[in-house]
Order: sequence, then C-alpha cells, then structure tokens
Amino acid sequence: MTKAVNIGIIGAGTVGGGTASILLENAGEITRRTGFPVTLARVAERDEARLKSLDLPEGVGTTDAAQLLADPKVDIVVELVGGTGIARDFTLQAFANGKHVVTANKALVAAHGEELFAAAARAGVQYRFEAAVGGGIPILRAVRESFTGDRIQGLFGIINGTANYILTEMAENGTDFADVLAEAQELGYAEADPTYDVEGNDTAHKLAILIGMAFGGQVSLDDIYTEGITGIRPVDLAYAEMFGCKLKLLAIAKDVDGEIEARVHPTMVPESHLLARVDGVFNAVAVIGDRVGETLFYGQGAGAEATGSAVVGDVVDLARQVAAGSTGVPPMAFQQAERKPLTIRPMARIESIYYLHLRVVDRPGVLADIAGAFGRHGISIARVIQDSQSSGKTVSLVVMTHRAVEQSVQDALAEISKMDCVSEPTTLIRVEAEDD
Amino acid sequence: MTKAVNIGIIGAGTVGGGTASILLENAGEITRRTGFPVTLARVAERDEARLKSLDLPEGVGTTDAAQLLADPKVDIVVELVGGTGIARDFTLQAFANGKHVVTANKALVAAHGEELFAAAARAGVQYRFEAAVGGGIPILRAVRESFTGDRIQGLFGIINGTANYILTEMAENGTDFADVLAEAQELGYAEADPTYDVEGNDTAHKLAILIGMAFGGQVSLDDIYTEGITGIRPVDLAYAEMFGCKLKLLAIAKDVDGEIEARVHPTMVPESHLLARVDGVFNAVAVIGDRVGETLFYGQGAGAEATGSAVVGDVVDLARQVAAGSTGVPPMAFQQAERKPLTIRPMARIESIYYLHLRVVDRPGVLADIAGAFGRHGISIARVIQDSQSSGKTVSLVVMTHRAVEQSVQDALAEISKMDCVSEPTTLIRVEAEDD
Repeated sequence: MTKAVNIGIIGAGTVGGGTASILLENAGEITRRTGFPVTLARVAERDEARLKSLDLPEGVGTTDAAQLLADPKVDIVVELVGGTGIARDFTLQAFANGKHVVTANKALVAAHGEELFAAAARAGVQYRFEAAVGGGIPILRAVRESFTGDRIQGLFGIINGTANYILTEMAENGTDFADVLAEAQELGYAEADPTYDVEGNDTAHKLAILIGMAFGGQVSLDDIYTEGITGIRPVDLAYAEMFGCKLKLLAIAKDVDGEIEARVHPTMVPESHLLARVDGVFNAVAVIGDRVGETLFYGQGAGAEATGSAVVGDVVDLARQVAAGSTGVPPMAFQQAERKPLTIRPMARIESIYYLHLRVVDRPGVLADIAGAFGRHGISIARVIQDSQSSGKTVSLVVMTHRAVEQSVQDALAEISKMDCVSEPTTLIRVEAEDD
Repeated sequence: MTKAVNIGIIGAGTVGGGTASILLENAGEITRRTGFPVTLARVAERDEARLKSLDLPEGVGTTDAAQLLADPKVDIVVELVGGTGIARDFTLQAFANGKHVVTANKALVAAHGEELFAAAARAGVQYRFEAAVGGGIPILRAVRESFTGDRIQGLFGIINGTANYILTEMAENGTDFADVLAEAQELGYAEADPTYDVEGNDTAHKLAILIGMAFGGQVSLDDIYTEGITGIRPVDLAYAEMFGCKLKLLAIAKDVDGEIEARVHPTMVPESHLLARVDGVFNAVAVIGDRVGETLFYGQGAGAEATGSAVVGDVVDLARQVAAGSTGVPPMAFQQAERKPLTIRPMARIESIYYLHLRVVDRPGVLADIAGAFGRHGISIARVIQDSQSSGKTVSLVVMTHRAVEQSVQDALAEISKMDCVSEPTTLIRVEAEDD
C-alpha cells in the first residue's frame, strides 16, 4: 500500500469544518476508493475556540498557518480562509513549498487565477477549485474533464443560493425583496452585508471561472455585465407567471459567432425548462455542447457538507496523483498556452427577448405612442398586457418583445422615458426562451 | 509536445460514426485541451458501404478488426460493436495487446464486467464506459471521481430514452402503449424488437453498473427486480396526475441499513421533483450522498453525437494518462480488493408507498371488505378515489397507501384477488415520495 497522503486545512469555518468532518468520518470509505489513507494531518485556525470545537485528533490543530505551510509532511493544502488577501499569500506560499492547493474561494480564483495558475505550473503542483462554483455540484469537472470532445456553445447557471432563495420566496408569497432578505438573514441564508450575493458579484465571479473552462480563454470581471436582484418587485414575478415564466438570477455565457456573451442579470425562464424548477438555495447549471447537446447539473450550492464534499472530491483526485506521481489536467481545462483573452461581445450587441414593464398615464393614444417608438427602433412586440387594475391614473403596460438587439431596446426606452405619458422608470428583464 | 495518442474504433454504426466525427472535426479543440494530438488512426467496420460513408482519411478504414487490434500504433481501442459475444473477444484481445478500451456497451459491462476488469488489471490497462449509462451525461465520472468523500445513500434514474419517450407520449396524449410504441418505432426511437428497452432490461444493466460504482460492490443482474412498462394503461397515468405525480420507469438503488435495494419498475414521482420533468428521450439520474445531499444530472441518454461525446470524454482522459504514463482511477471507483458482493434486500422486504388500482363490482360493502384486508395486513391507506364514471357494474377503486412493506401489500392483494367482488387483476405501481 502507498504511504498516506497528508492533508492540511487552513481555515476551520463552515466549509473547513465540513471538510475536516468528511476526511475524519468517511476515511474508511475514501481508502476503499484510493487504496491508501488520505489523512487529515493539520488544521490551522486562528480562532482557538473554533479549533477546539472541531474535536480533532491529538496534534492536528494549530493556530499558526505558517507552521502548516512549512510542514514537510503536508502534501495538499486546503485553503478555506476566503477573500483575496491572505488567502492569496497562503496559496502562493503553499505552491512555493511544493504543495498542491484545493480551495472553494471563487473570489480569489476569479480575481487572481492567472497569477496563481502560473505559480502552480512553475512549482509543478496543481490548483483545484471544484467547490468554488455550484457548491457540491461537480460542474467544473464535467466541463473540464468530461466535455473534452465538445465545443461548448453556452451555459446558463443559477449559482447563488441566497439570490435564488430570495426570488423563490418573493414569487411564492408575493413578498417584497427587503422583507425576504431580512428573513433570509435571520435564517442564515444571507450575510449581514448581502451585497456580494444580491448584486450578482458572487455569480459573476463564478461565471468568470466557468467561462474560462468552457471556452478556453480569459475573461476580466469588468467585462461581465452584472445586474442584481435588488430592483425586482413582486408584481414582475406575478407578470412572469402570466407569461409562463419564472424569474431567476442567471449567469449566462454564449459563444455567438466567436464572440462570448458574458452576463449576469435577472432573467425570465419558461416554466417548461428545468432551470425554472430550481428553487430555494439549490443551484443548477445547464451546459450546451455542440455534440452532447443540452445537459443540466443540479445540487446544493452551499453549506458545510455539500461544499466539503466538492473539496474532498478534489483532495482525493490530487491524492491519487500524488500517490501515482502523475500530473493532472490543466487547471482551466485547456493548455495554458492555448488560453487567450476572449472577445467578449459588448452588452449593447447581445440579442434577447425583453420583458418591459412601463407605468404610463391612462389616456387615449398612449399605447400608439409607445408602440410607435418600438417600431421606429425595429423592435417587434409579441404580447402586451395592459393592466386596468392599477391604482389611480397610472396603468401598467407590460410588453414582451420578439428577439431584439439590446441597444435598440435601450434606445427605444430612452425615447419613451422622455414621453410625458411615462410616470416611472421602466422595468427591463431579459428572457431566455425560444422566440415563437 | 508529446507524440500523438492513437485511437482505433471497432464498429462504425450510430455511436461509432458519431465518435469518429467528433475526433475528426473537433481535433483542434481537443488538442487545445490535451497539448498533444488525439488521432483517429483506424476504424474497423465489416460493412464496407457503411465504412465508405464515413469519408475517413486515407488508410484509416479497414473491414478487419483483427488488423486494428494487432496494430502497434493503436493505443486506445473504442469497442462499439455491441452485444456480449464478439465484443467481449475484441475487448480481451485489446487488453492482451496492451491497449486501453473504451466502450458504450452496458450489456457487456453488466454481464462480464468482473472478468474484464480483472483482465484489464492483469494487462496494466484501463477499461472505461461512461457512455454505457446515461449517454452523454457524465454520471459515472461524478459517482466514480467526484463523490469520493461521500457514502452514497441512494440513486434514482430515468436511464432508458425509449421507455421515457413512450410514457411521456402516453401521458400527454392519453394514447395506449401499443400505439405509442408503433409510433416510436417509426420515428426510430424504438427498436424493431423493443423488449430490451420496454421490459426494463436495459435499465437494469445500467443500474447494475451504477450500483457497482456507488456502493463499491458487485450485484448480479438476477438480483435486480425488473418490471417493464408494457402493462401501463393511460388510465393509470391520468390517476397519477390526480395524485400530483408523473409515471416514470425508474432505476432505484438505496442503501437501507447496509442492505441494497436494487429495482427497476414503473414508479410514480411527485411533480415537484425534477425527475418528473424529464420528458421524451432525455435521461436523468439523481444521486444522494451523505455529504453532498441530493444532486441530479440531466442530458441526452442516446444518439450518435451525445453518446459519442461521452466516448470521447473517456478517450481524452485515457489519452492524457497514456501521455503521462500514469494509471487511472479503478474502473468501478473502488479498489478491486475492496469490492465485495453486496447484500441485496429481497423485494419482499422493501418499503414503499403503493398506488393500487382495483376494479371491483359496484355494490354495498365492497370498500369495507377491501379496506378490511388492507387493515389485517397492517397497510394504512392515505387516499382513495372511487370512480363513478366507470362503465357497467365495474368501478375503479384507486388507493394510495402510506409507507408499507412489499410483502404485506402482496399478501393483501392475494387475499383481495380471491374476493368475488374483484373483477380484474389489480394494477400495482410503487411511488417514490415522502410519506405525509
């Protein structure tokens, strides 16, 4: 039997604790798969109380990460510190000391991935981050190692559990965003500062990683159009249902004639699509390949155990390679030299179906004025709902367009916003559906 | 750059043709991932006309599989002959000649897997079969390589596209089994002899492979309870909807106190579950791990391109190992020595919710008699629908039970079948749902 491969975890918070418990409690099951022990050798955590609560075997816990990083018996470092500061230092130090690194840190990979991939390559070690996208869902492995015969054409993901929980609750109970957010914070589904989740940044970080793996290139976070869910009102969720749709915060990437659309925004999805059925804190990613066609991967996007499962999946994979002395698949699926900056299609040039909720004064000729503006910009209208139940003199005019160019829609809305019949800013929500 | 890794395909039917076209047309994209060419070196096909139709590069095609198997430049053999006869011979010959083998042949793996795994191990080569289960869905890789920190608790799969297409059409149009089957045969979704698909054997073969990987043991095909869909009537699909369920042919495996339930049968699934939304020829497998929780994998379960995508996924993985000179993960996820025969729970001892459709004479006291029989066998009834619209003197009595033991249900039905109020055999369909 090969000697044990030794694991050191830095950061014993939620995911760190989950990872440690899996390595300790399922050690036998893991050895049945590997043929050698994958041993939790060290856990570094600054917070002594937290470290004690883990009930680790004698000599495993330390408050000093540097000690763990310098320990020659640690083969694989699991970085679960979070953030892009000290986590980056620890990762570079681990590489420099010849250790592989596994992480769940999407912010770090999205912001400093290229630097870290290069450092790992120089040191002859690997950097793995399955848990960074989709929690327990093995989506990165599928894109990286299974769809290797495919050209990926597109992917669509619900990859932030907090946002999906809020949208699900708003739709089911007709509650306002702020009320559901407060409830989610009480339940521990949302952070005290929820900005990163509800403004779409977390989703954009994960999308950047998915795009890199799927299309074999690099995308800057600045090039990903990012729009959160704070402006969503229950009334728009109700209209979505009238159109047979659910509203989701989607990460979208598509290869359109060699340019990549890269965007995160609230999106209506037809109820017939599985993504519309992904509720609460669950995540799902649909991947479309030119050969495999449409696929979908579903599971828990967060949580100690589910995310820990993905971390351990990477750990075991690396442990096998340590034992065999082999090198693995490149971190972003494609050979480093074959990875180039991608041409990201500017948002103004994407095409989509648009849901537009206008609030207008209820008087003759208004519909004609507005329809005229759409017509002048070449936007064809598929359906209109004029809601007579609106209070006062303002009525809701809800328009579903046929496929149109973003810039034309924005131009038409700019023109419409100047009309004195328009009483409030228009709500724009993009729709991912077949145009009929 | 590493020298090319060379691929030989035996059998150029649907999947063989799809695999060849991927290796030829997406060669550039594959090399961007591997860093070296994965070259289609030989294709062996007895049917000369079919071989010509592939339009292969000069010198690649041959009608002689033996020539391909003996060719020293072929590193990886792709066996797409099908069946368990000559396919087995070719596979053993390839191993003996030091070549890795990739296949989509679930019948061969399910029937002769153990022999083939042992032969591959002796020869120091690998045997890979992602495409054998779920077509293009990378479900085996997830179970084998991603959920390595988990104890798998259960899995539920729609893994036969023909059966799922027939059930979907029957439910949507209220059509009889025989009519939909005839239509499916015309469309090419069902074979001239559909037995293997509609009687559940294909599903059982795939389930045997999934069980081996998920639970780290061996299961004999004879130990998998297998019931097909030929007895399903449109009326039961309509009742399923009244209970908020869809009817699917499910492969089910569960670890219940160390015993494995292993069964294939028509199953009602609540509409709220994603599996209920998997329609037509699509496949999906839900996997539940003790850490990752519930996951689901969805995609095309058949077809030249989708299945070819999975074959190429395995080919590229092996090619990387050939290039690196490394050994891979064991074929069935667990170390060979750690794989033991599993204890399969006899069908009589499983517990489930049961849908029972009785046809009884419409006269006073019948419901009391039948309810009495259920009560004597400890079966608690959750819902009853007595259908007054039935023709003549026979009425439909549809019963949804609470969770009950299979043997008790069978005993109660045996007793009920002897009552003179019962006019026809009772339809029994198991239900996978939470008992409330």
